[in-house]
Amino acid sequence: MALIVQKFGGTSVGDADRIRAVADHIARTRRQGDDVVAVVSAMGKSTDELLRLADAVSSDPPPREMDMLLTSGERISMSLLCMALADLGIKAASFTGSQAGIITDTDHTRAKILEIRPDRLAAAIADGVVPVVAGFQGVSTEKDITTLGRGGSDVTAVALGAALDAAVCEIYTDVTGVFSADPRVVPDARRLTRVSFDEMLEMAATGGRVLMLRSVEFARNHHVPLHVRSSFTWEPGTWVVEEDQSMEQAIVSAVTHDATEAKVTVAGVPDRPGIAAHLFRALADRSINVDMIVQNTSANGTTDISFTVPRVDLDDAVAAAESLSGEMGFAGVSSDSSIARVSLVGAGMKSYPGVTATMFETLAELGINIEMISTSSIRISCVVDESVVEEALRALHAAFGLGG
Amino acid sequence: MALIVQKFGGTSVGDADRIRAVADHIARTRRQGDDVVAVVSAMGKSTDELLRLADAVSSDPPPREMDMLLTSGERISMSLLCMALADLGIKAASFTGSQAGIITDTDHTRAKILEIRPDRLAAAIADGVVPVVAGFQGVSTEKDITTLGRGGSDVTAVALGAALDAAVCEIYTDVTGVFSADPRVVPDARRLTRVSFDEMLEMAATGGRVLMLRSVEFARNHHVPLHVRSSFTWEPGTWVVEEDQSMEQAIVSAVTHDATEAKVTVAGVPDRPGIAAHLFRALADRSINVDMIVQNTSANGTTDISFTVPRVDLDDAVAAAESLSGEMGFAGVSSDSSIARVSLVGAGMKSYPGVTATMFETLAELGINIEMISTSSIRISCVVDESVVEEALRALHAAFGLGG
Repeated sequence: MALIVQKFGGTSVGDADRIRAVADHIARTRRQGDDVVAVVSAMGKSTDELLRLADAVSSDPPPREMDMLLTSGERISMSLLCMALADLGIKAASFTGSQAGIITDTDHTRAKILEIRPDRLAAAIADGVVPVVAGFQGVSTEKDITTLGRGGSDVTAVALGAALDAAVCEIYTDVTGVFSADPRVVPDARRLTRVSFDEMLEMAATGGRVLMLRSVEFARNHHVPLHVRSSFTWEPGTWVVEEDQSMEQAIVSAVTHDATEAKVTVAGVPDRPGIAAHLFRALADRSINVDMIVQNTSANGTTDISFTVPRVDLDDAVAAAESLSGEMGFAGVSSDSSIARVSLVGAGMKSYPGVTATMFETLAELGINIEMISTSSIRISCVVDESVVEEALRALHAAFGLGG
Repeated sequence: MALIVQKFGGTSVGDADRIRAVADHIARTRRQGDDVVAVVSAMGKSTDELLRLADAVSSDPPPREMDMLLTSGERISMSLLCMALADLGIKAASFTGSQAGIITDTDHTRAKILEIRPDRLAAAIADGVVPVVAGFQGVSTEKDITTLGRGGSDVTAVALGAALDAAVCEIYTDVTGVFSADPRVVPDARRLTRVSFDEMLEMAATGGRVLMLRSVEFARNHHVPLHVRSSFTWEPGTWVVEEDQSMEQAIVSAVTHDATEAKVTVAGVPDRPGIAAHLFRALADRSINVDMIVQNTSANGTTDISFTVPRVDLDDAVAAAESLSGEMGFAGVSSDSSIARVSLVGAGMKSYPGVTATMFETLAELGINIEMISTSSIRISCVVDESVVEEALRALHAAFGLGG
C-alpha cells in the first residue's frame, strides 16, 4: 500500500463527465489498496472567463483581488470531484490551499511555497478519506489568499508529494506522456517511458510544454518521482525520475523547439568589466526574463552581446538597451522577433562528443543558418529563423533515430 | 461620520456593469465621509449553474462539499467589486467568511452564526480600507467552510452591522423598498417609508418576499436599523426600525399574501391531553415546518385540528397524521393544496378592534369563504381559496386605504 498524489489539470476536470471519469479512476486506485491525495486545477476554460470579468471591471486589478478571484475555480472543481467520489462510495473531503496547510510568501499572483503543514491531510488519509486539494493556491503569512503562478497546480501536487512522502506524484493531462518531439510537428515522435529529472528540466526550459520547469525542479530537489500520463486513456505514461547511473542512457532523448522568444543584439559593446552587468541589471529592473545569452570573444576592444527574451518583452528590452547606449558607448541595438530555438536533450550526450557535429551537419544539409548556439552538459540549443524550425525539428529527430 | 454596512444581492452584482455601478455608489458614500463595509451575494444566476453541476456529478452531494462549491460564488463577486473600487481610487480588500471572522456551528448548508470576530475588518476600516465581505458563508468550529442557508447574505450583513456597531445596515435589492402589498398584484401599492421590526417580522412571515424572517429577527435582537433600497435607482427606500411609541402609528401598514402552503385537517381528534403533542411531535420528527394551527373548542369529546405546511411537505404531513390515526382514534385526515393566506399587518392594529370586522366584511362582500383564521397582536391572517387570493388582496388594500 502506497500513497499516491494524483494531479488533474483543467482539461481532465473540464465538465461533469470528465469529473466523473476522474472519480472512477481514483476509486480504482483506492480499490487496489493505495491511498490517494488528489490535486485539481480549475475546470477547463473557467479561468479565462474570470479573467474576462476582471478585465471588464478594472483596468488594473489589484493582485490580491486577482488571487481571490482565480482561486474560486479550484473550489468548484474540487467540491464537484468530492461529490462524484461520494456517489461511488469513496469518502472524500475537499481542502483549500489554506486548509491543506500550504503556506506561501506574500507575493500575490506568483507566490512561493514557504512551508507545508499537512496535519489535516494526514489525519484525513489516516481516516480513510481521500483529500481533494485545490491546486495553484495557498495562504500567505499575512493570512491572505495567494496563487502560485503558471503551472502552480503541478507545484502544489509535487509539494504535497514531498510533504507526505508519497511514492509517486502522477500528473494527469490531455497528452499521454513526454515525447521525443512535439507530435504535432514530428508525426513519428515516440512517447518516452522514462526520463531523468535533468533531462526533463532541459526539455521544460527549451519548449517542452507538458511540465513547467518549476515543478520539475521541486520534484528533483525533493526526490518525488513524477509520472506524466493521460486522463483520457489512463494508460501508463512517462516516468520522470532520478538518473540511474547503472543504466545505459540514450544519447539523445528528445528534440524540443520554442518559437516564443525574440533576439536582441547589442553591437560594439566596449570590452570593459561591468558593462554586461549594467545591461542585464537594466533588464532585470524591468522584470524581463533573459533566456540565452551569447557573447563572442572581443575584437578591437569591442564585442557583440546577443540574448533572447520573451517576445512580449521585446520592446521593453530594446528600450532598456538603448537607454544605456550613450552612457556605455554601444554601437547599436538591433532585434529579431522571428527566431526560434531547436534543442537536443539527452543525459548520455555528455560522453558522446559527436552529437554537436551531427546536429550542425544536419542543419547545414538543409541550408539552415545557425544564429546563436548555447550548450549545457546534456543539451545543445541552436537559434534559427522561425520559418525553418519545424523542418529542423523533423530532420534532427530523424538524424538521431528518435522515431517510434 | 458613520459606519454603514451595505449589502448587495445577486441582481445588484449580476454583471460587470452592475458591479461598476455598485462601486460608484460605495465611492459616493465614502466621499460623503462615511465608512463602508460591503457584503455581497454571488452574481445573478451563478448559483443555479453550480447547483446544475452538482446535480450532474452526484445524486446526493455531501453537504460539506455543497458548501465548498457554493461559496465560490461570493469569492468571484467580492474580488471583482474590489477591483472596480480600486479603479475608482477607493482602497478595498475582500474577505471570505472565514477571514471576516464569521464563526458558525457545523450544520452544513444551514449553519448558524455563533460568533463574529471582526478584528481584521475593524483594522481594515481603521486603515481607510473598504472591506468587501462574502455574504452567506462562514467557517465552522471544525474549520470547515459553511453556508448560512436561504437569505444568508442578509444575515451576514446584519451580523456584521451588530458586531461593528454600524449606524445602519442597507440592504440593496432589485425593488425600491417594502410595499403596502405586492405591486405585481396591487398596482397602487405604496412604498412604506418606515416600518417597525415587529411589523416587518409579521410581513416576512406571511409572504413579504423582500427580507427573510431570520435577518429581521437578528436585526431586531441586536438593534441594527435596516434600510431596504434599490441598487438600480439608488433612491431612499424603506427603513425598518425599533417601534417609536411616541409616534402615531398607521393602523394597518400592509397586506401580504402567500400561496405556498397547504392545509391538513385532522377530524375527530379525541379531546384528551397529549394527543396534539403526539401529532406535532410526529411532524417535527419529519422536519416539517408547521405554520398556522387552528383548533376549535371541542364538541362531543372530539375536536378538529387544522394546520398549514409548505406544499412540498404535504404528502409527508398527511402520512404522519395517518400513521397516528389508529392509535389516536382520529376520525379522518383530509388535505387541501389549493389554499392561500392573506394577512393584514399593522402595529396600530392592537388598539383598533374594528380592524378584524372590516377585514371579514370586505371578504364577505366578495363572497369569499374564510377557511382558517389566526391572529397576533399586530396581524390577522385568513386562509382562503387560492383562486380568490389576489382579489382579496386588492379589496383589503383598498378597504384600509393603503393606496398611494
